[in-house]
Amino acid sequence: MEFEESGIGEECGVFGCVAAGEWPTQLEVGQILTLGLVALQHRGQESAGIVTSTGANPPTYTTLKGMGLVNTAFKPEDLAKLRNVNLGIGHTRYSTTGISELQNCQPFVVDTLHGKIAVAHNGELVNASALRKKVMRHGVGLSTSSDSELITQLLALTPPMEELDTPDWVARIKNLMTETPTSYSLLVMYKDVIYAVRDPYGNRPLSIGRLVPISKLHSSGAGETDTEGWVVSSESCSFQSIGAKYYREVQPGEIVQISKNGLKTLSVVPRPEGDPPAFCIFEYVYFARPDSIFEGQMVYTVRQRCGRELAIEAPTDADVVSTVPESATPAALGYAKQSGLPYVEVLCKNRYVGRTFIQPNTRLRQLGVAKKFGALTDNFAGKRVVLIDDSIVRGNTISPIIKLLKEAGATEVKCF
Amino acid sequence: MEFEESGIGEECGVFGCVAAGEWPTQLEVGQILTLGLVALQHRGQESAGIVTSTGANPPTYTTLKGMGLVNTAFKPEDLAKLRNVNLGIGHTRYSTTGISELQNCQPFVVDTLHGKIAVAHNGELVNASALRKKVMRHGVGLSTSSDSELITQLLALTPPMEELDTPDWVARIKNLMTETPTSYSLLVMYKDVIYAVRDPYGNRPLSIGRLVPISKLHSSGAGETDTEGWVVSSESCSFQSIGAKYYREVQPGEIVQISKNGLKTLSVVPRPEGDPPAFCIFEYVYFARPDSIFEGQMVYTVRQRCGRELAIEAPTDADVVSTVPESATPAALGYAKQSGLPYVEVLCKNRYVGRTFIQPNTRLRQLGVAKKFGALTDNFAGKRVVLIDDSIVRGNTISPIIKLLKEAGATEVKCF
Amino acid sequence: MEFEESGIGEECGVFGCVAAGEWPTQLEVGQILTLGLVALQHRGQESAGIVTSTGANPPTYTTLKGMGLVNTAFKPEDLAKLRNVNLGIGHTRYSTTGISELQNCQPFVVDTLHGKIAVAHNGELVNASALRKKVMRHGVGLSTSSDSELITQLLALTPPMEELDTPDWVARIKNLMTETPTSYSLLVMYKDVIYAVRDPYGNRPLSIGRLVPISKLHSSGAGETDTEGWVVSSESCSFQSIGAKYYREVQPGEIVQISKNGLKTLSVVPRPEGDPPAFCIFEYVYFARPDSIFEGQMVYTVRQRCGRELAIEAPTDADVVSTVPESATPAALGYAKQSGLPYVEVLCKNRYVGRTFIQPNTRLRQLGVAKKFGALTDNFAGKRVVLIDDSIVRGNTISPIIKLLKEAGATEVKCF
Amino acid sequence: MEFEESGIGEECGVFGCVAAGEWPTQLEVGQILTLGLVALQHRGQESAGIVTSTGANPPTYTTLKGMGLVNTAFKPEDLAKLRNVNLGIGHTRYSTTGISELQNCQPFVVDTLHGKIAVAHNGELVNASALRKKVMRHGVGLSTSSDSELITQLLALTPPMEELDTPDWVARIKNLMTETPTSYSLLVMYKDVIYAVRDPYGNRPLSIGRLVPISKLHSSGAGETDTEGWVVSSESCSFQSIGAKYYREVQPGEIVQISKNGLKTLSVVPRPEGDPPAFCIFEYVYFARPDSIFEGQMVYTVRQRCGRELAIEAPTDADVVSTVPESATPAALGYAKQSGLPYVEVLCKNRYVGRTFIQPNTRLRQLGVAKKFGALTDNFAGKRVVLIDDSIVRGNTISPIIKLLKEAGATEVKCF
Repeated sequence: MEFEESGIGEECGVFGCVAAGEWPTQLEVGQILTLGLVALQHRGQESAGIVTSTGANPPTYTTLKGMGLVNTAFKPEDLAKLRNVNLGIGHTRYSTTGISELQNCQPFVVDTLHGKIAVAHNGELVNASALRKKVMRHGVGLSTSSDSELITQLLALTPPMEELDTPDWVARIKNLMTETPTSYSLLVMYKDVIYAVRDPYGNRPLSIGRLVPISKLHSSGAGETDTEGWVVSSESCSFQSIGAKYYREVQPGEIVQISKNGLKTLSVVPRPEGDPPAFCIFEYVYFARPDSIFEGQMVYTVRQRCGRELAIEAPTDADVVSTVPESATPAALGYAKQSGLPYVEVLCKNRYVGRTFIQPNTRLRQLGVAKKFGALTDNFAGKRVVLIDDSIVRGNTISPIIKLLKEAGATEVKCF
Repeated sequence: MEFEESGIGEECGVFGCVAAGEWPTQLEVGQILTLGLVALQHRGQESAGIVTSTGANPPTYTTLKGMGLVNTAFKPEDLAKLRNVNLGIGHTRYSTTGISELQNCQPFVVDTLHGKIAVAHNGELVNASALRKKVMRHGVGLSTSSDSELITQLLALTPPMEELDTPDWVARIKNLMTETPTSYSLLVMYKDVIYAVRDPYGNRPLSIGRLVPISKLHSSGAGETDTEGWVVSSESCSFQSIGAKYYREVQPGEIVQISKNGLKTLSVVPRPEGDPPAFCIFEYVYFARPDSIFEGQMVYTVRQRCGRELAIEAPTDADVVSTVPESATPAALGYAKQSGLPYVEVLCKNRYVGRTFIQPNTRLRQLGVAKKFGALTDNFAGKRVVLIDDSIVRGNTISPIIKLLKEAGATEVKCF
Repeated sequence: MEFEESGIGEECGVFGCVAAGEWPTQLEVGQILTLGLVALQHRGQESAGIVTSTGANPPTYTTLKGMGLVNTAFKPEDLAKLRNVNLGIGHTRYSTTGISELQNCQPFVVDTLHGKIAVAHNGELVNASALRKKVMRHGVGLSTSSDSELITQLLALTPPMEELDTPDWVARIKNLMTETPTSYSLLVMYKDVIYAVRDPYGNRPLSIGRLVPISKLHSSGAGETDTEGWVVSSESCSFQSIGAKYYREVQPGEIVQISKNGLKTLSVVPRPEGDPPAFCIFEYVYFARPDSIFEGQMVYTVRQRCGRELAIEAPTDADVVSTVPESATPAALGYAKQSGLPYVEVLCKNRYVGRTFIQPNTRLRQLGVAKKFGALTDNFAGKRVVLIDDSIVRGNTISPIIKLLKEAGATEVKCF
Repeated sequence: MEFEESGIGEECGVFGCVAAGEWPTQLEVGQILTLGLVALQHRGQESAGIVTSTGANPPTYTTLKGMGLVNTAFKPEDLAKLRNVNLGIGHTRYSTTGISELQNCQPFVVDTLHGKIAVAHNGELVNASALRKKVMRHGVGLSTSSDSELITQLLALTPPMEELDTPDWVARIKNLMTETPTSYSLLVMYKDVIYAVRDPYGNRPLSIGRLVPISKLHSSGAGETDTEGWVVSSESCSFQSIGAKYYREVQPGEIVQISKNGLKTLSVVPRPEGDPPAFCIFEYVYFARPDSIFEGQMVYTVRQRCGRELAIEAPTDADVVSTVPESATPAALGYAKQSGLPYVEVLCKNRYVGRTFIQPNTRLRQLGVAKKFGALTDNFAGKRVVLIDDSIVRGNTISPIIKLLKEAGATEVKCF
């Protein structure tokens, strides 16, 4: 399935990093944040942002934001400004609601009575509309349509702003979690700590990694004393590219405080009794990178297992098994293995098609998916093809693909 | 005096336009806003913004913002989006506080319980710091350091958000004026009207103009029935470039509602008893364009009169009178006329110098004002020069200019 | 193998289109050129250019050029300028020699005694250095380091410029082919025709397609009378995305004239006696898109056959066969099929890594390929892996990949 | 007169700098070039370029080019590349012929048999069309429509390219001067020298300055031994902003070689017998900055003298004298002084108007010059005005200005 056609919103990636031990750190926090976001780029290519903190009292925050891919959004001269920072959070945005504008780019930073907080968020609040109204009734004007601004204002709003030296952010976060049960994986940075939060249903993923010396990355003996810093990310696939070891997932409803002294679970907000966790199935199906680990299992392996199951539940009389590249490939390989049918590639994808400007009502409009997929005719001409797609919601994409394969010589195309 | 060195903040220009009579209008509101801002460009070159409304119920707002001059900030394809709008407000920003970023660019738009409002503002709130604290204590997070966001949030905040069909904006604006007495000239757009507001002290300028058919622009007989629309602007100098007749100033403390039906004074908030109005003297001295009219007098004429006064109060034995181009030229001409001394030009200004990147600690740094001003030696070599500057605050610029003139042959330089 | 590390130059793609029949054409030539280049984007992402002609006498040429991908390089408002054109050529550039600058972007257009010619070129002249010297000795100053400018100047230079109405371009092209035997696939546009040329060795690919009504695209009965236009492209994979049928390849040494009246072979320049054709092997190995057809065979099929051959020539005792994604995948599948070993995926590629700015001498530098490839551990942990890469030249990339797989649990990695 | 309406082409500015004495130099050559061009910015705002040389054997050339003002065209990170250079030439371009594109931006650099030369040029070749044909007949393809490329190719072309170690550039330049008598002020950089050339008629200006220690800039005793470098510029106004003393003009027909060892006149090509020099009158009238010196006289003084002459030749019965700002101001002051009439300002110019995008056929189109000039009514209402413009060619601008002044209350406007 084409993600763009799914109508499923708020992919997005969040990433945070806190240097461990004595500050100022030797760790390249700014670059770790950048590379971490690059590894989450598949979760959002619309815009990218980083907010860092020196962690001093008072802290200095630095914000980088830009449209497009991480490598486009941040320029070398901007990244140079991120030297001497000790912690930070970042975000890659997949534009769903609202227009693609720099002002919708996360993390969102606001100044509160207690100083600045920065918020990065993946998810969609189920009751966003009611919450917007509530916040506005309180007299707050909202300058964007994003849930992130809403979350930030909710954090600032309740409980009432006490004029204390150390505000009770945990109480505020818990209050937020009461107001809106799902869905969000959230990073909140305040001065020298990051609060990493998953909603009580655990709908969106959030994993913690531990930065160790590269030399000890693959040895089992890298103990706690070797910890150079902590990272928290939408997906564990980002850990390997920055030299972090997978540590654990943030649990549904958990609020983890990450500081230079390490991790501390501040609270675990429970679900309504009887409600099961509700991890987003589409993470397994196509959001996530196949080498990421959720709930103890590699995404690739889950996808492959789905393919095997499919072959058992829906055996087909066919000649070959294939995939709509590329998130469906593990499932297709699983189907092939289980069914004993040979796996072949039938489509070649042009990843550069993007938003080519084509005038409406022209000859070229009729060509549809042929602009994006080329047929590898030799592999399936005269054959019956089982074609595995990652999911079929509206079928807008798969129907023309079937047509394309038939026109190119497939005698039959069965699609799952 | 160099404005950049004055430390005086918030120049900025605001401009609004409402088409009169039946909507949809034939008036090119988008282009009038653009040209109006171009005419106020001397008040701010950092960024520019326009927010328009269809005025329908509900209205559609369109926002254009960009860094730099108006002609750079708005692209033709963006301006094309402003067709079919019936009213709008705009802003040119001179960056004072806060960094130069798109997110600080005005007008500021927020969504409230009653729908979106757009705010453009020229001035500096005397009690901004206390107001920020007040707003944040209420639980509002502020995402910029600008007074405009603060004003917008204050408008949304009090009185408490009633859930009425027609919110009482006048009460809200009056409340704002109670909270902060000065300084602001303010345009607030809501659906199909613009509220034009000057603070009770009348610190910043705001004038109203009437759009008439070009053919009747210079006839005295263009009556009310010929009104094509209304404009409101920081300075009346913008009226001629869009075909508007000068109508009147918004009075100190006045709240004027501008709609397609014309003007209506909704309230005039008084000053504390005994307090005189306090129009910003620097508007006369160098902010304003010389052809603008404030308090019934042309700025040029006021400047010239100052020069005459100076010649009376401080007569000098000299050979020639001159100016530091160019805001001081009327005063220098006035001084010359009054004193009987000949007026000559002694300096030639390079207006392209701008922010040329020069490495510190180099030979070129020592050259100072010579990068900006060339000496017209023939006009003053061997002569005693009276040099009129618009104002001398810190003297950072004038001292090296005096040095430059002496090195170029002036026997004496007296500077006012 | 990483292409960037191969040192093999001048990938690039060329594409041309001529509308058939009466002019002005209804064919969207500008958009066909754009989409054609998008389909050749894998051959060069550095810059893109299009030059079109009205084909009138005298013709009007329009040039679009920009850095980056086709979709970035050409803006919608630029493409709008390409209406009412009847023919054109385009180019996607992979920067090899010379810096990445707009001025190196092709097609190259020069004005000659006979009017403007436009040249797009894929290849590298074996004797470029000697030819540059020859051209410069003649007194021509060369403004770029590109072969394309050299070719263009050579075409203008000899034979001596006769002042005829119709210059003998064929003689000039033949002369060029005498001067430099290889390698180039060349499009030369002059007024209303395109000359499509392959060097005598046929080193670089060049194929011709026929534009037919979309409705007849897949029927075998689309006769000559249905021809809407002609396209010529580095690879036939571009044909399907614009609705063209594969027609034939330009032959080694052939000069084909493409006009609104169709194709005409003007000359076939022979190779030195005894010399075989020398089609670039790297086109099969990794330059070309797998669904392209060269010499009558689909690239994918050739790659797969290579994998089978490898399995015969180099059988290995192993548990699984895999690929370095993605150009080696057909070969890996071929090896697996032939050897009977199971095919699995072991690496997940992050295609967004690109030119991330990383400071030298840092912890992150050590991570190497881990920034680009994630290990799909479940698929190979504890197993012996046969890893197929498309080619191994210097081994800069493959060694760290092997290390990565071993660290992730492979007991053995054999690499081809 | 509006320069844009004059149809007079090729304003442009050229600037060169060579560090004196031992190399590598301590002189900031890159920054001197930049500031020098900023001082010539009034001669061209379309694009800017710099080419520098290390002067080593072989030399390394660095090219910076960009659209717009110098400060926009060159970014700080680009300028940083110009460290460690010993000489260079630059150009600001006023687009006349040809489109505004980066490829037309000067200096033009070409590779010749003897290595690269860089050429910057101000002027228009009288016989450009014939020369283009000549060059093209020789077999050279021209890639732009600019005279600069033509000059560069002519320099490469004749005399025939000898394969010597030290090519005879002087012979080549002299040959060029034979081919085309006017108009050009030319800088040719080759390895470690700059050739500064004025055409035999001396149509365009070119002056030489001497860089001395800032401390000795205004002392008369700065002897030859204090020379830090040499600069050559279209106008001497640039000297003061970089700390150079005016030295002398390049003479009509003179070829001056500038090297680290100083100046050397290599040749003076004579005019046809009987022909007088023909310095461009428009330099005095409005091209040049008033503080520049040509033929021993300050431009400002010449303009003022013209005003006095005008008052003698064309005395008028009027109340006030004024100017169309701003190049006509010296003449107006001269007229006023001579005639005894008072000088006043009547127009206020908005320098930001630029290329505001206005749709055709709209109300705003009719406003004409009112977008650009505001009337300072108080200064002329009810009076007869003598209005001095720098020159009146087609009268496109002056007529509407007269109309504007009359509508604003002038009883009579006499215009020169």
